[in-house]
Amino acid sequence: MNEGGVLEILNLTNPIFKGYIFYSALLVLKVLAMAVLTATQRFKRKAFANPEDAEPRKLKPKIDENVERVRRAHLNDLENIPIFFVAGFGYMLTNPAVGTALMLFRVFTIARFVHTLVYAVVVVPQPSRALAWATGYFITGFMAVKTLMHFL
Amino acid sequence: MNEGGVLEILNLTNPIFKGYIFYSALLVLKVLAMAVLTATQRFKRKAFANPEDAEPRKLKPKIDENVERVRRAHLNDLENIPIFFVAGFGYMLTNPAVGTALMLFRVFTIARFVHTLVYAVVVVPQPSRALAWATGYFITGFMAVKTLMHFL
Amino acid sequence: MNEGGVLEILNLTNPIFKGYIFYSALLVLKVLAMAVLTATQRFKRKAFANPEDAEPRKLKPKIDENVERVRRAHLNDLENIPIFFVAGFGYMLTNPAVGTALMLFRVFTIARFVHTLVYAVVVVPQPSRALAWATGYFITGFMAVKTLMHFL
Repeated sequence: MNEGGVLEILNLTNPIFKGYIFYSALLVLKVLAMAVLTATQRFKRKAFANPEDAEPRKLKPKIDENVERVRRAHLNDLENIPIFFVAGFGYMLTNPAVGTALMLFRVFTIARFVHTLVYAVVVVPQPSRALAWATGYFITGFMAVKTLMHFL
Repeated sequence: MNEGGVLEILNLTNPIFKGYIFYSALLVLKVLAMAVLTATQRFKRKAFANPEDAEPRKLKPKIDENVERVRRAHLNDLENIPIFFVAGFGYMLTNPAVGTALMLFRVFTIARFVHTLVYAVVVVPQPSRALAWATGYFITGFMAVKTLMHFL
Repeated sequence: MNEGGVLEILNLTNPIFKGYIFYSALLVLKVLAMAVLTATQRFKRKAFANPEDAEPRKLKPKIDENVERVRRAHLNDLENIPIFFVAGFGYMLTNPAVGTALMLFRVFTIARFVHTLVYAVVVVPQPSRALAWATGYFITGFMAVKTLMHFL
């Protein structure tokens, strides 16, 4: 009747699917927050990238290390979060255990928040940033490998 | 029979789903267009990033502000468009009104086209770029918050 | 019974859907590999972006062309791969022929691996990188245009 269908997976009563949508929306807001962080630093340091932003303030475009740090954190999000969305979607289709799947989504989300916190809000000595990054990295990698094995 | 299923949402007769797919495809083409814009500027300004591109033209790799401007617009797309795809998908599952959902997809898409136009095609004084950016930003944020509330 | 539903498309017995998930997972791993490539170059060239990474090694943050090359290849992935995921999803809903769809997914994936190989692993003279890039670019473009036409 629903042979091979994904009705039971992409289902609003399936806690894994609900968790996936919930943490994805949270991660979207986290990425959006990076723009506020960047703008805050640009105004604070008076460091704008474009003449049309700098000149009305009688400034010249300049590069500031504090702005660049936030931009690197933002870029790190772009390198890691969109592929998590895709790996997480494939992983859901491999029939993972509910507890495991929700834990992976949750830990990934926390790790990305921590990454930005120790990278671009309060600079904490290594290996804090490396650990936060690696946590997210290996979760995405695990989900992608499990998906690959399942659909081979 | 389809308890909690998303059959009525991910449905080719559902105008919201059709709109989501349509505007997403349009945004994909918009992002693809950025590569043409960058290449045009690189050739026009003879500013290439790699020795293997510059040397056959008897040039050295160099940085040009007009190229960098297009690259910033492209990066701004990468910061905003993939998370829109995810926020829009979650938002569809919250049973929004058809008119509202289609309007948000449409306005987001227009705002992103305008953003590139005033940033990297014809440089228009601020706040035109800020307004175009903010329009897309708040639409994505609204959709993500609505999704979060719905799946809490 | 399943009027307009996508049950037959998003179906674990549909080879196109299975291929889409499989190649997407492979591309996720490919993007993850870029971080290893970057880290390898950073350690080899002793070129770190942050003081907290450089100072414990008694170095200053510096920019190295070999690191930047890998970072450009990584950024090129971010410019091309997330939009492929979206274009490929829309394209699946247009009822493509199985053979065509699978071939497009496969060729895109190979092209992106080749792109990184000739850009950032072994630098091969142009037009090898341009061809690898264009192959992926036109596949994504084709899929997006087909989706647009179908949902117009």
